[in-house]
Amino acid sequence: MKAVVLEKQGVINVREVPDVPAPGPGELRIAPHTVGVCGSDLHYYTHGRVGKYVVEQPMILGHEAAGTVIEVGEGVTGFKPGDRVALEPGIPDMTSRASRLGMYNVDPAVRFFATPPVDGCLCEEVIHPAAFTYHLPDNMSFGEGALLEPTAVGMWAATKARIRPGDVCVVTGSGTVGMLTASAALAGGASKVIISDVSDVKLGIIGQIPGIIPVDLTKEDLVERVREETGGWGADVAFECSGAPKAFETFWKLIAPGGCAVLVGIPVNPVSIDITELQATEVRIENVFRYANVYQKAIDLVASGKLNLKPFITDTFAMKDAKAAFDRMDEGRPGDIKLQITVDRD
Amino acid sequence: MKAVVLEKQGVINVREVPDVPAPGPGELRIAPHTVGVCGSDLHYYTHGRVGKYVVEQPMILGHEAAGTVIEVGEGVTGFKPGDRVALEPGIPDMTSRASRLGMYNVDPAVRFFATPPVDGCLCEEVIHPAAFTYHLPDNMSFGEGALLEPTAVGMWAATKARIRPGDVCVVTGSGTVGMLTASAALAGGASKVIISDVSDVKLGIIGQIPGIIPVDLTKEDLVERVREETGGWGADVAFECSGAPKAFETFWKLIAPGGCAVLVGIPVNPVSIDITELQATEVRIENVFRYANVYQKAIDLVASGKLNLKPFITDTFAMKDAKAAFDRMDEGRPGDIKLQITVDRD
Amino acid sequence: MKAVVLEKQGVINVREVPDVPAPGPGELRIAPHTVGVCGSDLHYYTHGRVGKYVVEQPMILGHEAAGTVIEVGEGVTGFKPGDRVALEPGIPDMTSRASRLGMYNVDPAVRFFATPPVDGCLCEEVIHPAAFTYHLPDNMSFGEGALLEPTAVGMWAATKARIRPGDVCVVTGSGTVGMLTASAALAGGASKVIISDVSDVKLGIIGQIPGIIPVDLTKEDLVERVREETGGWGADVAFECSGAPKAFETFWKLIAPGGCAVLVGIPVNPVSIDITELQATEVRIENVFRYANVYQKAIDLVASGKLNLKPFITDTFAMKDAKAAFDRMDEGRPGDIKLQITVDRD
Amino acid sequence: MKAVVLEKQGVINVREVPDVPAPGPGELRIAPHTVGVCGSDLHYYTHGRVGKYVVEQPMILGHEAAGTVIEVGEGVTGFKPGDRVALEPGIPDMTSRASRLGMYNVDPAVRFFATPPVDGCLCEEVIHPAAFTYHLPDNMSFGEGALLEPTAVGMWAATKARIRPGDVCVVTGSGTVGMLTASAALAGGASKVIISDVSDVKLGIIGQIPGIIPVDLTKEDLVERVREETGGWGADVAFECSGAPKAFETFWKLIAPGGCAVLVGIPVNPVSIDITELQATEVRIENVFRYANVYQKAIDLVASGKLNLKPFITDTFAMKDAKAAFDRMDEGRPGDIKLQITVDRD
Repeated sequence: MKAVVLEKQGVINVREVPDVPAPGPGELRIAPHTVGVCGSDLHYYTHGRVGKYVVEQPMILGHEAAGTVIEVGEGVTGFKPGDRVALEPGIPDMTSRASRLGMYNVDPAVRFFATPPVDGCLCEEVIHPAAFTYHLPDNMSFGEGALLEPTAVGMWAATKARIRPGDVCVVTGSGTVGMLTASAALAGGASKVIISDVSDVKLGIIGQIPGIIPVDLTKEDLVERVREETGGWGADVAFECSGAPKAFETFWKLIAPGGCAVLVGIPVNPVSIDITELQATEVRIENVFRYANVYQKAIDLVASGKLNLKPFITDTFAMKDAKAAFDRMDEGRPGDIKLQITVDRD
Repeated sequence: MKAVVLEKQGVINVREVPDVPAPGPGELRIAPHTVGVCGSDLHYYTHGRVGKYVVEQPMILGHEAAGTVIEVGEGVTGFKPGDRVALEPGIPDMTSRASRLGMYNVDPAVRFFATPPVDGCLCEEVIHPAAFTYHLPDNMSFGEGALLEPTAVGMWAATKARIRPGDVCVVTGSGTVGMLTASAALAGGASKVIISDVSDVKLGIIGQIPGIIPVDLTKEDLVERVREETGGWGADVAFECSGAPKAFETFWKLIAPGGCAVLVGIPVNPVSIDITELQATEVRIENVFRYANVYQKAIDLVASGKLNLKPFITDTFAMKDAKAAFDRMDEGRPGDIKLQITVDRD
Repeated sequence: MKAVVLEKQGVINVREVPDVPAPGPGELRIAPHTVGVCGSDLHYYTHGRVGKYVVEQPMILGHEAAGTVIEVGEGVTGFKPGDRVALEPGIPDMTSRASRLGMYNVDPAVRFFATPPVDGCLCEEVIHPAAFTYHLPDNMSFGEGALLEPTAVGMWAATKARIRPGDVCVVTGSGTVGMLTASAALAGGASKVIISDVSDVKLGIIGQIPGIIPVDLTKEDLVERVREETGGWGADVAFECSGAPKAFETFWKLIAPGGCAVLVGIPVNPVSIDITELQATEVRIENVFRYANVYQKAIDLVASGKLNLKPFITDTFAMKDAKAAFDRMDEGRPGDIKLQITVDRD
Repeated sequence: MKAVVLEKQGVINVREVPDVPAPGPGELRIAPHTVGVCGSDLHYYTHGRVGKYVVEQPMILGHEAAGTVIEVGEGVTGFKPGDRVALEPGIPDMTSRASRLGMYNVDPAVRFFATPPVDGCLCEEVIHPAAFTYHLPDNMSFGEGALLEPTAVGMWAATKARIRPGDVCVVTGSGTVGMLTASAALAGGASKVIISDVSDVKLGIIGQIPGIIPVDLTKEDLVERVREETGGWGADVAFECSGAPKAFETFWKLIAPGGCAVLVGIPVNPVSIDITELQATEVRIENVFRYANVYQKAIDLVASGKLNLKPFITDTFAMKDAKAAFDRMDEGRPGDIKLQITVDRD
């Protein structure tokens, strides 16, 4: 079959790779239709590694996928060939202590698409457990299905925040994950979501959603604006999605007494935190590592129209142009929210 | 000043009553503009009592009010004459054990408008604590402000359910509180809300809201429909809003493993419950008594457009026609969701 | 190997059965040392069924076991032959939706020892997943290890109650599970636990534990006593462990505003509940079905001396006298808390 | 009446001050019997200020008090002269937004004993609201009653941690608050509490409590020890009670996946935190500012014998020797956990 292979740092080829085997018990054989390009894919391409994970042999890229079921393994119920599905890319050891507690996302044994040495799903066929595969409703495209993966991060952040109906939320950083977190928080119960960034292009895109209040940090003071929007009380929930050290300087001042901070963005270096500032309002801090048990809920929100993913799919490339998609992403155009690749089967 | 007075069971007069005193420290003098007619008001009118509360002397009716601040008591900040406001009608003893815990709604010492012997607010002026008074935004009418009171019950039910983003909810009973609970659950994070009733008129009204799925119990099996809508898993949250004994026969079967039931409707008599059915799915049951700390959040949801209260205001009466409003409510027309009365100051 | 076999209703034999196979991947071969006699075992013996589960072919009895590891399957880490262990008897499908959420106990596909047609563990050897096997510390006997199974029910009840440090708890019904729930609640953070029963023998046993307050229902009014012990406020948590319809008549009156009720006992028939009583205090009701993720925590409490299981092991029988153990349990002596059987390997 | 007055930085006099007025509605007149010496009192004495609070006029010291009711104000029920009581020292505005939510401790308007310009309670008589006064049971001394104040901090930390029965906890820093937090966590449901410090004197005192595991940081690696005590999983809850920057270097490594960190100690300067370390285990972080709603629960735990405060009262001084008590505390002897002063009425 054909696959988009990262041969080594800087070298992407679309070429033949060995076929996948038949699905085992509980597994499905799936033909990916649309696969999103993610920052981690790009980083493997440009740097040959992400943290401790190093590309030491050719690896198929991609972990954000939706496609069609081709073959059903033994003991699988609820799926049949032809079903349109989305794939949750991390496969944990379900008997681990973390998994038994329902936190399969923090199981260290998890196998994740396109994380060396595990191959990704930017190819014609993959084998995937039925337990981590989800039906796409008719009114949801493959592109939206592939976008569920980063959406799941935002959904998980909104879930861990324990938003109460009508909470006022704030999101610092309007990158892809920031936008999706803002959208998930709004669909997930917030009355309004204030989102900040330095890019007016990005804020222009997310600001079109009713209930989202964009704040351009080059022109406006975020702490002051949050105070105005909340009668001086502060936001019930603040999501840090920028990972920028500067964001942490004022971040805690955004939050109401007894409020919640969710740390989604990943700062490269340690940040300096004034603990007394956390204590004065007794802020609760939740941390996010991927997601667990949110794919179906994200699908339900998209299907009902409460969560609109369409504005975030910027452009789509054919599989043969995969390298161009990665190079385009590397440009970092502010209006590029999500680039996707469609897999053309022969 | 003029007031709508329930002289005794069956006798309502719009007549002069003594003026209110000046506001004390922390208090406001407020001119109610719009006041909703509630089932408890009606019950005092038709039966002369609600449970242990008996009308033994003339009482001003009404507890669902929005109006305008006229005078500000000592030490009050944040309010000035002319401010448009909604009134939270229960005034607890804030030093009680329940209040100190944040559960001021279950403080037995609470004083509640139009609960004998406490007068209501269907009159030209009332004195009210600033701590239980809320600013109405410009895009919210007095009618919507008055409707916040029953909305708060739905908001509280949705809050206690701890809805996670994308949860599927079901509401049994599409009366006023059922409709408002469904609306609050949807705005509060649900992906969709299935609501059941035997009245196609009521279902027609609530069913116009996108994301609400009406189920006519005379034509469809609710358990079966919930199963279909959830892939056989069951609803994450079920709100019982009918108070009907029959609803309890199948209510527990609507709920997913580990799901939540919120009991909002008030059955007149004890109901029979099979405990083993509760245990099999480890359902969590939350109970609702009025509400606490949700007025501002309801206002925020209405202001942002996520919670639309307009479809629920059926008709508005002038103060001089107050008796007609109560008599109309007593008719129990299925399409009458909320009747309101406007207070005309001389 | 030898096993205690329920041939059919009323007939127990200690006889040879086929040996177990070698352990598969992730599995252990374990020699049970001590196995408790449980009410469900007894019920299969005396009635041939428990609810929908019917004994249609000979079945090995027993599901409360501790023993020694004999052989370790492929891929198992952390266990070696000779290790002393306790066995969590329910084996769920860890890929099910409930299991992925961390609620493996409500997975309908769970396989449970001695639940037809699944054999129990009152025999010389069993195969068991390492993920559901727990090390016994040196200061914990096999008897205590076997008692972990009913203790886990009490631990789960105490966990779901979300006891806050110093909460006052009450337990209605001082049977085996009631005693273990009271003990778990006390070790789990309660300041004191009031426990009621009609048997002064049972109350005499549990009442010896400091912090437990026994209330003899034949001599004292429980509601009144709880009121006295809590300054009129009510218990923060009430565990219903009797399953008796009469207990439900006053049960809700035991609970403080905003308190929690945990339903542990299993009433045979539906019970009548006045919903308005639940609503007046906004009680939260939690339901218990077996347990999840509490074995290690119970072991830690026993090992540290905070949870003393010794008073609850009444008598121990040799395997050859297994029938006598079941007959003794059938007598229902009030002082018999837990009877256990030791497995003598040839 | 006589009082211990801090005239200005460095000058303490025991001298006459004006008598207190009669108690107002809801208030009590109380004669303090025992008052603890706290680090904040000491800091006002030695530095003339604590943060933004500056001693600009003579101030009565002391905020940890137990005593006897002398006079009862209008409307107070449940108290009579002669009652032995403990005083919760912070008096919030109960109508504030934070108080209405049950978080009266983070209300910025709170009036706190011995926080300039508010006088303390190290004097013969004080006026105090009945709502923040608690009965001492017969088996609890005035000294233990006065110690409830710092105990409440530990109780609040243990409450916010949401300890589940059997959780393994760790406390970094064995100062007064560290010891009381460890004790509260143990009484509050932990199976064992590992506590670290560099002082073998302090560890010797706290280590005498069964279930407490002292770790001398000068001799042992804390991360390694926690790993051993938890089978490599990590502690379910970690309380940071040292405020030491060095503690934060390894603090996060102590915590199990999905575990909780409670920040109790108050670092003088900002600390550096590697956010990716928090995210990898999805740690939840709770912050503590004083306490709310825990006095009665602490009393219940002391009364039942589960929480033993006696080891922490090191020495008691007469009121006339108050200055000596403060000077002794200033010495900082490692074995001095809590010094107290008894008020001798003429």
